[in-house]
Amino acid sequence: MPTIVVEVMPKPELLDPAGKAVAGALHRLGHDRVRDVRIGKRFELTVDTVDEELLASIETVAADILSNDVIETVLSVEVLDESPAGETH
Amino acid sequence: MPTIVVEVMPKPELLDPAGKAVAGALHRLGHDRVRDVRIGKRFELTVDTVDEELLASIETVAADILSNDVIETVLSVEVLDESPAGETH
Repeated sequence: MPTIVVEVMPKPELLDPAGKAVAGALHRLGHDRVRDVRIGKRFELTVDTVDEELLASIETVAADILSNDVIETVLSVEVLDESPAGETH
Repeated sequence: MPTIVVEVMPKPELLDPAGKAVAGALHRLGHDRVRDVRIGKRFELTVDTVDEELLASIETVAADILSNDVIETVLSVEVLDESPAGETH
């Protein structure tokens, strides 16, 4: 079945405390070439079939339900023409 | 500066309770063409420059620090904004 991938990231102008914590941990472990870390979300929505109407509704879902538009940006809504990640058949 | 994107998803054989909750909410709202939802993470690591050594260390970081290999799979480690050709050192 097709999968629609929705990527959501914290807005660039906002602090991302979890990302900062990971960046700090990496520095303490010697990974000092990493300057910054930001942590967002990746949603995989499995759907029966893809058409324009479905994609439009998923764009609305991404903006209204999957993300919090005060603090997050929807980076992309894309059809993945594959099984969900790592799915075995 | 280049960005390295690391994508991490819950393992397919494990239940993803947050994803199931979102799928349930979508169904209650009438989005019944969405069969399943799984929620993973998307890390953006900003780095000065990209080279083979850095990429190898980020692959290790992705497997050992950014993901929990009991419950998660590293889907991809990709350079998003590569430095101009020849800039690596």
